[in-house]
Amino acid sequence: MKKKIISILLSSAMIFSMGISTVSAAAADDTAATESIVVSKTEGITDTAYGKVRGFIDDGTYTFRGIPYAKADRFEMPEAPDTWDDVRNCLVYGSTAPITKMTDPDGGDFLIPHRYWAQSENCQNLNVWTQDLDANAKKPVMVWFHGGGYTNGSSIEGIAYDGKNLSEYGDVVVVTVNHRLNVLGYLDVSEYGEDYQYSGNCGTADMIASLKWVKENIANFGGDPDNVTIFGQSGGGGKVISMLASPEAEGLFNQAIVQSGSERYIEKDTAKKITAKTLEILGISDNQIEQLKEVPYDTLDAAATEALKQVGEELGTSLSWRPVLDEDYIQSNFQEWTNDVPVMVGSVFGEMNCWTALDPNETNKNSWTDEEVDAKLTEKYGDKAEAVKEAFLKAYPEKSACDAYYVADRTKFSKTLTKRVEAGATKNYDYVVSYESPIDGGVNLWHCGEIPFVFHNVDLVAGSYGGSQDAYDLQDVMASAWVNFASTGDPNGENVPEWSTYTDDNKSTMVFDTTSGERIDYDAELQELISQ
Amino acid sequence: MKKKIISILLSSAMIFSMGISTVSAAAADDTAATESIVVSKTEGITDTAYGKVRGFIDDGTYTFRGIPYAKADRFEMPEAPDTWDDVRNCLVYGSTAPITKMTDPDGGDFLIPHRYWAQSENCQNLNVWTQDLDANAKKPVMVWFHGGGYTNGSSIEGIAYDGKNLSEYGDVVVVTVNHRLNVLGYLDVSEYGEDYQYSGNCGTADMIASLKWVKENIANFGGDPDNVTIFGQSGGGGKVISMLASPEAEGLFNQAIVQSGSERYIEKDTAKKITAKTLEILGISDNQIEQLKEVPYDTLDAAATEALKQVGEELGTSLSWRPVLDEDYIQSNFQEWTNDVPVMVGSVFGEMNCWTALDPNETNKNSWTDEEVDAKLTEKYGDKAEAVKEAFLKAYPEKSACDAYYVADRTKFSKTLTKRVEAGATKNYDYVVSYESPIDGGVNLWHCGEIPFVFHNVDLVAGSYGGSQDAYDLQDVMASAWVNFASTGDPNGENVPEWSTYTDDNKSTMVFDTTSGERIDYDAELQELISQ
Repeated sequence: MKKKIISILLSSAMIFSMGISTVSAAAADDTAATESIVVSKTEGITDTAYGKVRGFIDDGTYTFRGIPYAKADRFEMPEAPDTWDDVRNCLVYGSTAPITKMTDPDGGDFLIPHRYWAQSENCQNLNVWTQDLDANAKKPVMVWFHGGGYTNGSSIEGIAYDGKNLSEYGDVVVVTVNHRLNVLGYLDVSEYGEDYQYSGNCGTADMIASLKWVKENIANFGGDPDNVTIFGQSGGGGKVISMLASPEAEGLFNQAIVQSGSERYIEKDTAKKITAKTLEILGISDNQIEQLKEVPYDTLDAAATEALKQVGEELGTSLSWRPVLDEDYIQSNFQEWTNDVPVMVGSVFGEMNCWTALDPNETNKNSWTDEEVDAKLTEKYGDKAEAVKEAFLKAYPEKSACDAYYVADRTKFSKTLTKRVEAGATKNYDYVVSYESPIDGGVNLWHCGEIPFVFHNVDLVAGSYGGSQDAYDLQDVMASAWVNFASTGDPNGENVPEWSTYTDDNKSTMVFDTTSGERIDYDAELQELISQ
Repeated sequence: MKKKIISILLSSAMIFSMGISTVSAAAADDTAATESIVVSKTEGITDTAYGKVRGFIDDGTYTFRGIPYAKADRFEMPEAPDTWDDVRNCLVYGSTAPITKMTDPDGGDFLIPHRYWAQSENCQNLNVWTQDLDANAKKPVMVWFHGGGYTNGSSIEGIAYDGKNLSEYGDVVVVTVNHRLNVLGYLDVSEYGEDYQYSGNCGTADMIASLKWVKENIANFGGDPDNVTIFGQSGGGGKVISMLASPEAEGLFNQAIVQSGSERYIEKDTAKKITAKTLEILGISDNQIEQLKEVPYDTLDAAATEALKQVGEELGTSLSWRPVLDEDYIQSNFQEWTNDVPVMVGSVFGEMNCWTALDPNETNKNSWTDEEVDAKLTEKYGDKAEAVKEAFLKAYPEKSACDAYYVADRTKFSKTLTKRVEAGATKNYDYVVSYESPIDGGVNLWHCGEIPFVFHNVDLVAGSYGGSQDAYDLQDVMASAWVNFASTGDPNGENVPEWSTYTDDNKSTMVFDTTSGERIDYDAELQELISQ
């Protein structure tokens, strides 16, 4: 910069001789405070086992995008990535896993803002946000597995997945992971060759490879390789559960958080049928399996999606991609060592019930008359309506009867907890987020709605919460709980109300809302009524 | 909300009886100022000729996403969209035009942050940002045509395309448009049926349909249908130029801004060859043209892309999708009525020369020694190096010799101006943006780098400019110039240095930088040297 200033001084005579009229740039009186963002040849560079990487420094947060953690041939296990010389730029997100091209925007995008990205089978890359590059800093590490079932999504699909604010707020190292999905991640071709033994879990193997990368490299990003928390939501919550079920994940994480996730696998026999049907649709015979590696993704994906559908119809169910329960890579029981891993499990008040809430042609629930509320509850719960209403108001005395229309059945999300308790694991925490966004008259929290609180990212998706100050306040409480848990295995601490472990004798649930607090065995009656 | 508070008061005894421990949400002491974002059943709703639409109100800015402005069968002209009853939610962006699936992230994304979206052939939709829904408000209207050649891009591809800040800063109505692209927008099947007469310009016809929608509907969004400015960058600049060349666009706009765009069409004969080759690749005969409407997009796109390549090879050139110069829908000469339309034309300092500037393994230009500068200039300009250096420092005395390595040949961008002057049009303005971002030691402004200044969106892409205050200041100057021009056809006014029209006798160029000012006939010698 110095050079430039001198150049301006020396040539001012020249400027005037050219008849240049100038005006100073107007003062930016109403712009936001400026951030300092640094990309440099010397700062923001660190080592990995495979080569140096350069990120950018965003208001003090070191940000690395698209670091390769593995490489893999189609249907094969991930291997160490290629090494590189010099410094690798990690300024731009890496390719995300191929997904079926979407043809209609998701109407829920107003509540859950999305982004999409370039896609490639070479998608084993991750992103890191950290406050420190000192190898002795030993900050807690939080590794995020994204949602979208095992079919869709990416490490950057949710606008709220950006790790900067959580890293800054909690002084933690945040890692978000891309891995193989759908037919590339979960087609089981193990019948057709030794190289494919675990092909029904390629996506899961990628995640495990990412955790191995973290173990090996995260100290160079200021992280503590011996204090790693995995967390994920929806499909990502399911992915976290699958890590409790795989011997391959042993020693790779220290805490786990399951947000609105449930345990969902595909049986080995079913997996075999899907693969056979896929080959049949593509006209590829058993001994030509190598051909399957050359089929363009779109063709392969279309065939496998059709196979899923047909096999599902045969079995009288609806199938989607899931890890294959082979009792080897993925096992029915949680691994014994996970009994020592603190696990937090929870869901949100409304989950999938809230999508219609933004209909401009319907009155909002908070405008319903008492008669309308009763009619709606009867429409939904039939002759149990009155009992539901009563049980609901006992569980959520601060809410209104109309909210009983939107409250979710959370029993499927609680199963992880029950299974853990049965197995003898004691460090369990349960939560529900019952916050109501003021948007459009009031919308109970929807599936994915807690993610911005966890990531301390309300600012990035402020529209979802009407810009409400309550939402900003709640993110302090929730992000603190998550960071505390990631630091010590216990969510208690600053900003967080007292929160006891969930046991058979103490069915504690933290209810996060404008006022958050623990409730004991508070909604069993309600859940029993609405889950029937 | 009142209802809720009462409910809390009534049930506080109940809360304590349940053993609920509570803590107030922590004060959000370090969060950004909260925004007010409103979605309601009564506000933010306005009429269109096809039905009512509901947007959201973002800190006072009415925001409508994905309003349909037309519908069209493949290869056919756009028609009026279907009407709808009740209120249509316009909270979420509409589908963007199908593009070839990207397999590698663009390395330039750090400098030009992108987003991608759901895609559909049913992509004729637009987005509106406005401060007012009063039909008598008559605010200037600015309609943005996106870049990406005629092959890629969307109304939301650039993070900086968001219209809120420009609408707020300039009190203008901002409209951004999705339209058909590539094979769907520009394959000329006019030989094969009357319905397809203008099929080589379907994408252009969509844009014209969007302008007709603006003319018919924008008053309901507070806009002045008789004061419409079209603007676009790169391919979008080319699209603006094509509007000067089409009789169909007469009366639909009042000012035009061409940012880093050039006039690029495909000859009718070449277009015919591309179509014939596409049909041949797909195995579709001339009299089976209806089949072409049923081919899945990916297959059609792959065939047409291959056809472009093969025909290009035959002709010894490289072809890409462009409007078809049929001398009917698109004509060689600018339309006579455009002589009365004020036009602003410009480009940026570095354009396509800056992509390598972020190489972490190369020293930044500002660290080069004098000897290194000379070596680099010789490498690039051969025995003209010394002359280029001298001419460069005469044109840009405030810059350093190293910048001569990155300065762009802007002659192709200036042709629109020259052609206008020759045709007798007098209301012309010329500009160059020579701002240098401090990122990574200093990067001269790159292709697309001015868009955040024009949209007053530096905050959304602050990383590109290292969070520099200079960038925030420059957006005030440039957005003011654009808004002034959109208001009156003259960029002069508050925040903007004196700027005279470009004529043969007064070759004025506004140079936008940390200090902006007009220069007269300042770089002809330099351009002559580097464009050879």
